[in-house]
Amino acid sequence: MKIAILPGDGIGPEIMNQAVKVMNALGEKFETETVPVGGAAYAEQGHPLPESTLKVAKEADAILFGAVGDFKYDTLERSLRPEQAILGLRKHLGLFANFRPAILYPELAGASSLKPEIVSGLDIMIVRELTGDIYFGQPRGMREAPDGPFKGAREGFDTMRYSEPEIRRIAHVAFQAAQKRSKRLTSVDKANVLETFQFWRDVVTDVHKEYKDVKLDHMYVDNAAMQLVRAPKEFDVVVTGNMFGDILSDAAAMLTGSIGMLPSASLDANNKGLYEPSHGSAPDIAGKDIANPLAQILSLAMMLRYSLGKTEQADRIETAVKAVLKQGLRTVDIYEAGTTKVSTTQMGDAVVKAL
Amino acid sequence: MKIAILPGDGIGPEIMNQAVKVMNALGEKFETETVPVGGAAYAEQGHPLPESTLKVAKEADAILFGAVGDFKYDTLERSLRPEQAILGLRKHLGLFANFRPAILYPELAGASSLKPEIVSGLDIMIVRELTGDIYFGQPRGMREAPDGPFKGAREGFDTMRYSEPEIRRIAHVAFQAAQKRSKRLTSVDKANVLETFQFWRDVVTDVHKEYKDVKLDHMYVDNAAMQLVRAPKEFDVVVTGNMFGDILSDAAAMLTGSIGMLPSASLDANNKGLYEPSHGSAPDIAGKDIANPLAQILSLAMMLRYSLGKTEQADRIETAVKAVLKQGLRTVDIYEAGTTKVSTTQMGDAVVKAL
Ligand SMILES: CC(C)[C@H](C(=O)O)[C@@H](O)C(=O)O
Ligand SMILES: CC(C)[C@H](C(=O)O)[C@@H](O)C(=O)O
Repeated sequence: MKIAILPGDGIGPEIMNQAVKVMNALGEKFETETVPVGGAAYAEQGHPLPESTLKVAKEADAILFGAVGDFKYDTLERSLRPEQAILGLRKHLGLFANFRPAILYPELAGASSLKPEIVSGLDIMIVRELTGDIYFGQPRGMREAPDGPFKGAREGFDTMRYSEPEIRRIAHVAFQAAQKRSKRLTSVDKANVLETFQFWRDVVTDVHKEYKDVKLDHMYVDNAAMQLVRAPKEFDVVVTGNMFGDILSDAAAMLTGSIGMLPSASLDANNKGLYEPSHGSAPDIAGKDIANPLAQILSLAMMLRYSLGKTEQADRIETAVKAVLKQGLRTVDIYEAGTTKVSTTQMGDAVVKAL
Repeated sequence: MKIAILPGDGIGPEIMNQAVKVMNALGEKFETETVPVGGAAYAEQGHPLPESTLKVAKEADAILFGAVGDFKYDTLERSLRPEQAILGLRKHLGLFANFRPAILYPELAGASSLKPEIVSGLDIMIVRELTGDIYFGQPRGMREAPDGPFKGAREGFDTMRYSEPEIRRIAHVAFQAAQKRSKRLTSVDKANVLETFQFWRDVVTDVHKEYKDVKLDHMYVDNAAMQLVRAPKEFDVVVTGNMFGDILSDAAAMLTGSIGMLPSASLDANNKGLYEPSHGSAPDIAGKDIANPLAQILSLAMMLRYSLGKTEQADRIETAVKAVLKQGLRTVDIYEAGTTKVSTTQMGDAVVKAL
């Protein structure tokens, strides 16, 4: 089993160090290869996703990814900016199924901006389509408006599109995820306005025929954003497109108040996957040894479970993370009075010890 | 001054009755004309926005709109569904500037799902572009995928597009709104992925040169959704496109926990406007005299202020609404122990009395 390690930028390298430490402590030999990505790769090789990095990622059985992005690269032209690396990896590796859990650990209930009774016990799974939609739809660009009331004016344009096989495969993934949980699935769309998402609704409804044990609801994206704020626990598994999923999965993560805890998985059709924290590269706190490494460590656990079939090792890591929380250890992002503030490194060490 | 009254469906007619009662109690003669819209218009005339209704709306100086939509019309083909009426009115009347305040009344702080310290005193204004973007962009429809990995498969597609004059005029409106408030504006986009919103960012940045007294920030839409949940009071005026505005304005409204209180205004280039509650038609509670009429009554106040130049009358209504809240009167949606539960009609009567 070969694992590609892509630490990236900002806090990426320091939280990745902790995850690697945990991996090494599992008492098993993993073959790993560490390569640069994002701003770090641009700085070294002039491109955020160099051919050599893509090759290592392609040949690996799974990819553990840190985070990309830094202020210093904000002025680069778009195609060279760090984010392009993650978009490129998703597309080139066909990682169409993004799993973003939003889980509130009981010990961290206080960190949420929502009232405890609204969020305690929160455990939702957002399944976001990751290789289609307006993220990749062609044509796109700048032009003179070809028609409409502002014909001839300069305009920017993009194409939203979803084909039947794309919707079908993500729907299957989502229904199967729902079967393993509470057998409820909410499909989020904007069928009342968009042709793309009327079609999305029709295809999801059709796939539902194969999963009659799952209760399917359709919800408009604006309503979903409201219901996530009002009563998030009414959701269990949510499936949606790339653009709506980007917005809703971040909102859902933030409901927990502890986005530094949340891992994510992006899978292809054969369960090969890229695993990364739900949070970003946080360049403002990089190098200070204060970032929370738990999302990265839990991403490792997800990798062991989904791509490497090592359920027992995944369980061990997740149990160790719960144990350090119970011990009262907290990085600064989740610190509250009465708990013990620890550094990135100390948190990683504590997880290793608890394994 | 001519006012078109469009009660619509669901709870629309009953909350509109209360607003009309308040209008009549102002001690001034308004020329009004009431016409059907949405499902009600479809039932009567076979179309959700009949020519006759559109004509009345076009000739009026302002439009007071209730709400549209009902389960019974869900199976109609899209072009006949009630929502098409509101989309049609926006487009035909050129109502490009949508103002959606999210205000938490101190008396209702308990209704929010967020902790009081996070939301108390919340007062944000979302300025949403309303006649462009993927809502109206052509081409759109169903076809065989012309290219890409699923070439030949059936697909739904839509076009996102914004031209320079469209972005410019909404940016001016938003900067001017910010000048009247705390002189801070957050422009929300997805410039890291979408051509349309890279252009949006460039044009907003350019318009900023004319408003140097306003502090402008740019924020990605996924981050904006997170920050709204984490620390909504850090926002003041927010400007964004039609699609992102749909999602974010509903999320922001729900932060208050009292969406039954929130009005909205949709204006054209000459301050002619359509005024409607931020909430929907709630067909499940229609006809029960339990809906909250205050968003409709506050929409009337916004109409008097923005389109009819009657600031004093608008102030009187807003003061009366605050007074009934202080008296402890609550419709069921905002009821909590220790307050007095009232019906739709009783709430309308109370506002009239407090005028
Ligand atoms: C960095 C950006 C392109 C990316 C996205 O929009 O998908 C990020 O927000 C995410 O959700 O992983
Ligand atoms: C009814 C629907 C078409 C509409 C929209 O998406 O604009 C509504 O959600 C709104 O925000 O006014």
